[in-house]
Amino acid sequence: MVIKVAVAGPRGKMGREAVATVIKNEKFLLVAVLDYKQETECLGDNIPIFTSLDLLIEQTEPDVLVDLTIPSAVFEHAMTALDYGVRPVIGTTGFTDLQLDTLRNKVEEVQVGCIIAPNFSIGAVLMMKFAQTAAKYLPNVEIIEMHHDQKVDAPSGTAIKTAQMIQQTRTSMEQGHPGEEEIIPGARGAKMGGMHIHSVRLPGLVAHQQVLLGGEGQLLTLRHDSFDRASFMSGIVLSINEIMERDVLIYGLEDIIL
Amino acid sequence: MVIKVAVAGPRGKMGREAVATVIKNEKFLLVAVLDYKQETECLGDNIPIFTSLDLLIEQTEPDVLVDLTIPSAVFEHAMTALDYGVRPVIGTTGFTDLQLDTLRNKVEEVQVGCIIAPNFSIGAVLMMKFAQTAAKYLPNVEIIEMHHDQKVDAPSGTAIKTAQMIQQTRTSMEQGHPGEEEIIPGARGAKMGGMHIHSVRLPGLVAHQQVLLGGEGQLLTLRHDSFDRASFMSGIVLSINEIMERDVLIYGLEDIIL
Amino acid sequence: MVIKVAVAGPRGKMGREAVATVIKNEKFLLVAVLDYKQETECLGDNIPIFTSLDLLIEQTEPDVLVDLTIPSAVFEHAMTALDYGVRPVIGTTGFTDLQLDTLRNKVEEVQVGCIIAPNFSIGAVLMMKFAQTAAKYLPNVEIIEMHHDQKVDAPSGTAIKTAQMIQQTRTSMEQGHPGEEEIIPGARGAKMGGMHIHSVRLPGLVAHQQVLLGGEGQLLTLRHDSFDRASFMSGIVLSINEIMERDVLIYGLEDIIL
Amino acid sequence: MVIKVAVAGPRGKMGREAVATVIKNEKFLLVAVLDYKQETECLGDNIPIFTSLDLLIEQTEPDVLVDLTIPSAVFEHAMTALDYGVRPVIGTTGFTDLQLDTLRNKVEEVQVGCIIAPNFSIGAVLMMKFAQTAAKYLPNVEIIEMHHDQKVDAPSGTAIKTAQMIQQTRTSMEQGHPGEEEIIPGARGAKMGGMHIHSVRLPGLVAHQQVLLGGEGQLLTLRHDSFDRASFMSGIVLSINEIMERDVLIYGLEDIIL
Repeated sequence: MVIKVAVAGPRGKMGREAVATVIKNEKFLLVAVLDYKQETECLGDNIPIFTSLDLLIEQTEPDVLVDLTIPSAVFEHAMTALDYGVRPVIGTTGFTDLQLDTLRNKVEEVQVGCIIAPNFSIGAVLMMKFAQTAAKYLPNVEIIEMHHDQKVDAPSGTAIKTAQMIQQTRTSMEQGHPGEEEIIPGARGAKMGGMHIHSVRLPGLVAHQQVLLGGEGQLLTLRHDSFDRASFMSGIVLSINEIMERDVLIYGLEDIIL
Repeated sequence: MVIKVAVAGPRGKMGREAVATVIKNEKFLLVAVLDYKQETECLGDNIPIFTSLDLLIEQTEPDVLVDLTIPSAVFEHAMTALDYGVRPVIGTTGFTDLQLDTLRNKVEEVQVGCIIAPNFSIGAVLMMKFAQTAAKYLPNVEIIEMHHDQKVDAPSGTAIKTAQMIQQTRTSMEQGHPGEEEIIPGARGAKMGGMHIHSVRLPGLVAHQQVLLGGEGQLLTLRHDSFDRASFMSGIVLSINEIMERDVLIYGLEDIIL
Repeated sequence: MVIKVAVAGPRGKMGREAVATVIKNEKFLLVAVLDYKQETECLGDNIPIFTSLDLLIEQTEPDVLVDLTIPSAVFEHAMTALDYGVRPVIGTTGFTDLQLDTLRNKVEEVQVGCIIAPNFSIGAVLMMKFAQTAAKYLPNVEIIEMHHDQKVDAPSGTAIKTAQMIQQTRTSMEQGHPGEEEIIPGARGAKMGGMHIHSVRLPGLVAHQQVLLGGEGQLLTLRHDSFDRASFMSGIVLSINEIMERDVLIYGLEDIIL
Repeated sequence: MVIKVAVAGPRGKMGREAVATVIKNEKFLLVAVLDYKQETECLGDNIPIFTSLDLLIEQTEPDVLVDLTIPSAVFEHAMTALDYGVRPVIGTTGFTDLQLDTLRNKVEEVQVGCIIAPNFSIGAVLMMKFAQTAAKYLPNVEIIEMHHDQKVDAPSGTAIKTAQMIQQTRTSMEQGHPGEEEIIPGARGAKMGGMHIHSVRLPGLVAHQQVLLGGEGQLLTLRHDSFDRASFMSGIVLSINEIMERDVLIYGLEDIIL
């Protein structure tokens, strides 16, 4: 069975790749796109462009709505889609708690699945899950994340998320020598629950993270390299396939993998 | 509650470290060791040395028998221990299928747990399990294992085991370009079910393995470095603790972790 | 002093980046481009396009000609440029020995420098040079090169070049255990002068190589990751600057760095 | 020609390995050892133990004195050895400037070479030298050093030395985004001349360092892993061989390699 897919936000960087990915996949059929303005009638040869989600759904009847638009728009889209029985696959973060509760209630009411994935990169999600599991057995953990030098904030969101996930499986503990001394301040990195996080910024780098777990006589390293945006596409494909089998609200790819 | 432990094979390389590990651990009490000959009466100050397992058990009543002796001895030890209600933790491979069946039946009969662990390194076992899981989502896999240059066989047992575990979760598929050409034979490594395994041998190396899983725009790397024999000790400690809670035959640490 | 630069082959992948790089650099002035056909008069606002190199040089008087065209064209370009006293920076391989000799003689005659660089990536050239030097002290070497899975040949040209460079500084020697045995053929990789080369091919990868040099108790790893074509631009910038100071034929960036 | 070697400090950790290394090497002959006390007459079967350096030299006539004793003793040893025409190979740091000047003058006077090597690991010295050279072409640098968690100070001496050496070849420059912000303090590591140094401390680790040099589209990584003390022995062997050919004071292996 072919899954009918609509994409909201088809002209953003992610959106354009998502459109290409859906078109290329034999198990999917791209039936329409949703844009905030309509410069031409069709995308490419024959994909109709809509500015109204209601019209889009009524005329093209998608099974899944992949939404890569901005946070302010995506909540309304999801509520509308669910009312029509269309399954949202959402790649935006920034929902309020109230919005999440409202969505969860709607999903329960209509019994139609919905996925919100702050990170569509399967490899990154696997790295985080594995780190969380491994920390049960090797609780001494340091995280090194490496990004291009145009990134302003440090540590990265993924590094902080990873540390939070690890904190759920290990007790907070101080690592290193009790008398540890930083000859130059900052040498031992950022501290979170006793873990240490190091942020490297260099031109040429893209987005990389390694989680190091040390034990007597051994080291386990979990590393993810994201070389370009294509890394998100496998997560979108997985989400489209999986959401057809679900009737709950899923937050994070980690709940549909493993 | 302190767990009373006996160690069989206390003078081998692994055995000596196991003895030290058990002594150091506050939750364990080393009550005796089993050796094939008895040069002195005690190990250190006060650990009695036995050459008969029956006598050892009758006089010192251990909860767990850690057995690091040779394959030819270990099966009889385990059968004897189980009859007394003592839980074997075994770090030897090389059981015949018949022996494994016999052990499994005995365990069921007496309802006393037993662990056989071909690899006591928790980090290595985690790497293998994670590789197996990740290959479901990122099925393109290559393995690079690196050892000191005195190792004769290639690829390593761990690399082959890893590839076998991955084959259980992914369909056999040819990787790489269909027209792939080795300008120099062997460049693409050993092939196993479409996966490629590369064996590096250099002086200075100890025992290292990385599993590389590639997907569009991304790479997931799972790496384990074993720097010395101490890496096995955490697995022995975990096994002693875990087997107190179990009444089945467990083959491989992978069944008690995760 | 600003260096006046002309670019031949401005519409190829490399050429387009080179044009952008020269324009962006404050020490350079892009005076013209050479194309095999002339669809418009200017590139961008005001860079004249020529189809004749003589005309280009006579009218715009460049100091340096960056040539990124095809092998069949580049030799004549270089000979012409040298006659005018313009210094060629050439990013093409595939010269015959006769062509190289002719170029070398011409360079000597006119006393105008010329650079031919098969690899403009400074990082890759540094890796190769360092490997060559390090092998004097740590002669046990293995090379792991990793590329996307659309690459047909293995090992890569860079890996073979690296091994050749290393062979100039170390005597050919068999590595590994004398009784080494491949349980699965190919495990130990391709052999070149006793060195072992391993080729990894995975989707997601771009172009990566590591040279591992092992010694008693230690490992030295030299690794280069090429994430995109931009990595070649720093080599072009360096070449333009350096050739202004030279009056010989230089083959390979390795002769102007270090 | 066999080189006659004496070892001072034969019972320390380094000394014991040095004794074994010299004995094992066919090109060397261990003629005597110098200890601060003499419990037996000989080391092993037939290596005489002396407590007076004068006596040792007069009776056994070594070509080279490998000195692995404490800083307070080593200066006098070196002055004495030089007077006899014996070449010192010294693995101790902590000389005062005055002592270094005095040694340098003595070496010039007697025309007998002397090597002082704060770090006998050839791989580590190569890494530092290569980093220094590479930073000329790729001036954006970060250093990650990783040690066992019993190490008290951070960053390591080798990391600081590496940064100092790099500062000699690149102008001090701020790296990263000008508006860079540490969400958690310390994330961006220790700063030295605009470079960033990150110190990882985990059980299981031994002594590891990587220098990362980033440029547009590329990353060059220079990594050294020291797995055990044996890594120093190759530097001692090299020093013994080299000092036979020199008649100056050499400070640091970097001056005899490359």
